[in-house]
Amino acid sequence: MRNLTLLTDFYELTMMQAYHHAESTTGAQEAVFDMFYRENPCGNGYAVVAGLAQVVDYINDLAFFDEDITYLRSTGVFGEEFLAYLKNFKFTGSINAVPEGTVVFPGEPLVQVIAPLMEAQLIETAILNIVNHQSLIATKASRVCWAARGDRVLEYGLRRAQGPDAGLYGARAAMIGGCFGTSNVLAGQLFGVHVSGTHAHSWIMSFDTELEAFRYFAELYPTNCVLLVDTYDTLMSGVPNAIRVFTEMREAGITLENYGIRLDSGDLAYLSKRAKKMLDEAGFSDAVICASNDLDEYLIAELKSQGAQISQWGVGTHLITSKEYPAFGGVYKLAALRTGSEWQNKIKLSEASIKISNPGIKKIFRLYDAYSGKMKADLIGLADEIFTNDRDLTIFDPITTWKQMTLKAGEFTVRELLRPVFENGNCVYPTKTVTEICEYAEAERDTLWDEHKRLVRPHIMPVDLSQKLYDLKKSMIEKSRK
Amino acid sequence: MRNLTLLTDFYELTMMQAYHHAESTTGAQEAVFDMFYRENPCGNGYAVVAGLAQVVDYINDLAFFDEDITYLRSTGVFGEEFLAYLKNFKFTGSINAVPEGTVVFPGEPLVQVIAPLMEAQLIETAILNIVNHQSLIATKASRVCWAARGDRVLEYGLRRAQGPDAGLYGARAAMIGGCFGTSNVLAGQLFGVHVSGTHAHSWIMSFDTELEAFRYFAELYPTNCVLLVDTYDTLMSGVPNAIRVFTEMREAGITLENYGIRLDSGDLAYLSKRAKKMLDEAGFSDAVICASNDLDEYLIAELKSQGAQISQWGVGTHLITSKEYPAFGGVYKLAALRTGSEWQNKIKLSEASIKISNPGIKKIFRLYDAYSGKMKADLIGLADEIFTNDRDLTIFDPITTWKQMTLKAGEFTVRELLRPVFENGNCVYPTKTVTEICEYAEAERDTLWDEHKRLVRPHIMPVDLSQKLYDLKKSMIEKSRK
Repeated sequence: MRNLTLLTDFYELTMMQAYHHAESTTGAQEAVFDMFYRENPCGNGYAVVAGLAQVVDYINDLAFFDEDITYLRSTGVFGEEFLAYLKNFKFTGSINAVPEGTVVFPGEPLVQVIAPLMEAQLIETAILNIVNHQSLIATKASRVCWAARGDRVLEYGLRRAQGPDAGLYGARAAMIGGCFGTSNVLAGQLFGVHVSGTHAHSWIMSFDTELEAFRYFAELYPTNCVLLVDTYDTLMSGVPNAIRVFTEMREAGITLENYGIRLDSGDLAYLSKRAKKMLDEAGFSDAVICASNDLDEYLIAELKSQGAQISQWGVGTHLITSKEYPAFGGVYKLAALRTGSEWQNKIKLSEASIKISNPGIKKIFRLYDAYSGKMKADLIGLADEIFTNDRDLTIFDPITTWKQMTLKAGEFTVRELLRPVFENGNCVYPTKTVTEICEYAEAERDTLWDEHKRLVRPHIMPVDLSQKLYDLKKSMIEKSRK
Repeated sequence: MRNLTLLTDFYELTMMQAYHHAESTTGAQEAVFDMFYRENPCGNGYAVVAGLAQVVDYINDLAFFDEDITYLRSTGVFGEEFLAYLKNFKFTGSINAVPEGTVVFPGEPLVQVIAPLMEAQLIETAILNIVNHQSLIATKASRVCWAARGDRVLEYGLRRAQGPDAGLYGARAAMIGGCFGTSNVLAGQLFGVHVSGTHAHSWIMSFDTELEAFRYFAELYPTNCVLLVDTYDTLMSGVPNAIRVFTEMREAGITLENYGIRLDSGDLAYLSKRAKKMLDEAGFSDAVICASNDLDEYLIAELKSQGAQISQWGVGTHLITSKEYPAFGGVYKLAALRTGSEWQNKIKLSEASIKISNPGIKKIFRLYDAYSGKMKADLIGLADEIFTNDRDLTIFDPITTWKQMTLKAGEFTVRELLRPVFENGNCVYPTKTVTEICEYAEAERDTLWDEHKRLVRPHIMPVDLSQKLYDLKKSMIEKSRK
């Protein structure tokens, strides 16, 4: 990964210099910033948070090199004193975050930065960029995989991704969201995830006949032989030729595994059913039928409801760009500030109640049903609060406060979501492989009922505030009105 | 830039190995691939091509390092002979391309790769990824800038971009599309483009009062003093406090330049008109009024039509993700192939006529009106064709062939669009600064009439085929039908 220290908005640096300048009179200021989002992508019932490993790399690599200082000097905006400070810059703060792969909900602090104000400000943009992107794609992937109902979903979008990183980290996020593999070789190398792919139309077109192209490919890749059947005519030419080649392989005594066909155009429901019948009749009922061509979760769900005989889905543009909803919308808001020893809570007001931030240093408590293990609600409380299951817990909706729910003692369990990632500048977060994150993410999705996973108008998970946080927020709103 | 050699689809490598294997019997094969797109983003009348400099870097850096070979070996799919070939891989082909910033149209080869088949196949994915992304954002930016009608547009989307590269190269592309500057510091450093920004809500919130925050900022940045006025109440607090600070600056004898206010919420038409009146009455009629908050080209056009007093537009999410249309859709199709000395033309058929590719090695001839200098049409011809303006030229629409246009000798000019970029593996393309590309791109957009730039249902630019190419295509379609 390149050094991304200058991957920040210019105003972070102008603010930093101003804070640096102010410090001589005010003393050092420490801040708490929350990264959170306000709306689930694509109308989903939840989001899947991702990108933390890249945030960790970014923070660990933070450094202003000589050429950076030279560049900043050239803008004419920064003084030598501040540039000298940057030259020795090191992140000294603390970061807590929700682990990658966790299902999360609007309003919850996904990344909580507790750091000298200048440092917290510098890292705003990159944290938002990284977590927004990967959480978007992980969430989209979880929708696509949900629609595929256990079929393998392959991420095929690199050529349509918004630049190299979007392809690379998008593939990573897609795996966390539930994809089985990717076409992206670099993602395979860097993240140890499954890569797949066989050939394109150009392969078929480079031979005089489709049959020759299939034969040649089968000879070379007997155990990775998914043949693209739509170059000329799927049912009249592609599938019969594929069957002919599979028959020849069988007759030659080759054990057929991981073989089949790929459909990349036409009506995928009709073609897959016809192709499946032809393959079955020829004794190739275990052949993979892979479909691609502008798929998204809605089309996959429709095709499945129409009995499409597709066992593997290659999803490109819609997944890698989250085409329907291409920005996650995470924000980074000041929650508390201290100049001396006392924290001062901060709130961002707005005319829209959804846009009013939650003040103070917070924790997220996740509440589960003790019997089913399914999630009941999230409760955002203040850092000094503790919730346990040894007595009844009544929670309420912070907007429509009459909406209440009481969890009986012993009938629920509590888990805190935020984990320490950096402590005083030192990374304390254990490195996890993408495979480990994927396993955790799958277990996380299993804590939701199907009602929360529905593609359209899912059941809304309650995200409530503790009484103490609710009272603080209310009093701060009232105070500001005066 | 990192080495992106493995930023490719897995099937490129499986195909490469198969071609490598086939060479022993067929001899070396050379191919021509065209990268082109089929539909302008956002219903625009044209696209702005971008990303070529990054394609050049990518090609120049192509190399399989030991760790790459080790990784590929670990997949179990590749043999030692092929891996040995990769270890010594070097791109030896030729590439022609339309220069960055050129206005282009569907169906035109933007990048033409003429190379050994294996090499041409390897580079497909990254070329598509890079050119698709940057052309998308450059096109979107040109729409936004068109809506702003000469006002400065600033790219503010880094935090919502789909990963670091999407922010970085998206900022580059946005400049090519007409933006005046970006908030992205890394883009400023790497591409020498204008960066801008002042402060965020958190700056205001970190002071006890808005006035203190403004004063402090103005003291430090008297020549970069655009104050964010919507933290508490735009018209009751923000604008009056800003005016108070500007007045104090004026009274202190400071020359006010590049100063003003930024509106980031509320109704931007109403607030800007009220704020403008207040600023004018206080004698600050040259103050910048910058607006941000979820802007796109449609909203900017609407706000302007309602007399909004905004002189600078900060555009984020909608621009950096091309939210309405987040994938460019460029494809890479085989156009010709030769095993011995003779080129064999290739065509990709489809039931949709727009999806049938143009066969053969082609050129693009751009035809201009000799008097106005405005573009009349593009004509795609074969590589051995030449069109000059010394005699009448009749061109016709390749789908509805009765649509014809005759350009009179001497009344038009002709320019070829494709330029050599690589010749036999050597880069022959002159490096251009982003500023130079931006100037060229602006001149390019000026060759279009306003009718072609309209945001909604623009006039369609004719992209015709030469008679020779048309006849070739028709005969190949007919031949394949038999």
